[in-house]
Amino acid sequence: MNIEKKRYIIFLYSLFLMNFVIFVIFTGENEMEILKQRILKDGVVKEGNVLKVDKFLNHQMDVKLFNDIGEEFARRFAGLGVNKILTIEASGIGIACIAAQHFNNCPIIFAKKTLSQNLDGQMYITQVKSYTKGVTYDVMVSKKYLGKGDKVLIIDDFLANGCALMGLIHIVEQSGADLVGAGIVIEKGFQVGGQTIRDMGIKLESLAIIDSMDDGKIVFRD
Amino acid sequence: MNIEKKRYIIFLYSLFLMNFVIFVIFTGENEMEILKQRILKDGVVKEGNVLKVDKFLNHQMDVKLFNDIGEEFARRFAGLGVNKILTIEASGIGIACIAAQHFNNCPIIFAKKTLSQNLDGQMYITQVKSYTKGVTYDVMVSKKYLGKGDKVLIIDDFLANGCALMGLIHIVEQSGADLVGAGIVIEKGFQVGGQTIRDMGIKLESLAIIDSMDDGKIVFRD
Repeated sequence: MNIEKKRYIIFLYSLFLMNFVIFVIFTGENEMEILKQRILKDGVVKEGNVLKVDKFLNHQMDVKLFNDIGEEFARRFAGLGVNKILTIEASGIGIACIAAQHFNNCPIIFAKKTLSQNLDGQMYITQVKSYTKGVTYDVMVSKKYLGKGDKVLIIDDFLANGCALMGLIHIVEQSGADLVGAGIVIEKGFQVGGQTIRDMGIKLESLAIIDSMDDGKIVFRD
Repeated sequence: MNIEKKRYIIFLYSLFLMNFVIFVIFTGENEMEILKQRILKDGVVKEGNVLKVDKFLNHQMDVKLFNDIGEEFARRFAGLGVNKILTIEASGIGIACIAAQHFNNCPIIFAKKTLSQNLDGQMYITQVKSYTKGVTYDVMVSKKYLGKGDKVLIIDDFLANGCALMGLIHIVEQSGADLVGAGIVIEKGFQVGGQTIRDMGIKLESLAIIDSMDDGKIVFRD
């Protein structure tokens, strides 16, 4: 093989490698880009900094998007040994179930918000205030399904003031399980929840962080 | 080729075909067999005909089983043009989301049980009595996500007296959408819900029907 031919092959190979790297980076970023574009397209900003995403996230649900979200959580929490996913009823459940498929079909537990006759007394219990609904719930998880040896990833659709997430963290603490981190679909970055949780040293991954929604215009954190 | 050889080949081919047919039948039945075995293994019968399946269905959730369930629903409602799945919070959501993957990733809507500030006024509304919790809920679906042209499959985890399912049927009727049918994971065959819904001419498919739970012994309908 002459030197010209060798150089040409090296050149082609470099080109291929470069494209591959660009593709990998692009695909990784794309997960969140898909979500952000969807929020811009289908999200509706209402008075009082309310963001309605009930077209695809928490009333009508898009499982194709949920699979993209699950894949991205799996990328961000890879190698951390997650063997259980914890969420809270109702809107976290769909995302958590689809995401679990990207964590080796690990079990999902959804924390329940009221005392039901179908749940017996052996529960971890905490209180969570819902600003959206203006009430305080008892939030419960059965002691049978969470305990030492579990490596727990918390998944939820929204993070605003952080009350629901703090409740779930409190339940994981009570159980003696390890908290790997928390994966959130949409964080309202202008409310205190995200900062509070990060200041506790918890690995918090929000796929879209909204810094402001003034005059109905959604601005994402880069 | 001599006649002996021909006969031998035909014999082998018949054997293969027979095995194939047995395999197909077995796989079809197996879906439900897996579920029934799981109910026998992990279900707990409590006083007052309460069946607790919170180890795999409605508190801790097994998405591998949910995929088997989704596949079976897809088999039973194949060719009927399902393009939307309707369920009710909270325990129907996980099953419905996983099942949607077996219906071309069609959208899922979960009916909400209380009036939340995040839902505006344009709703289909019905009342549902919960015997488990001893209360009556307003159950709502946004008019934006259900209407004429939709072919709706209702999915839920349990069917007992049928109140929740009747509520969802009422919502589909209000919307003008076509009701394809209802897929239920566990039906308590000794309560009135199943018979009532079937008498209305609705295609109701329950993957496990329990005929009795006397003295803690679960008996399935064949």
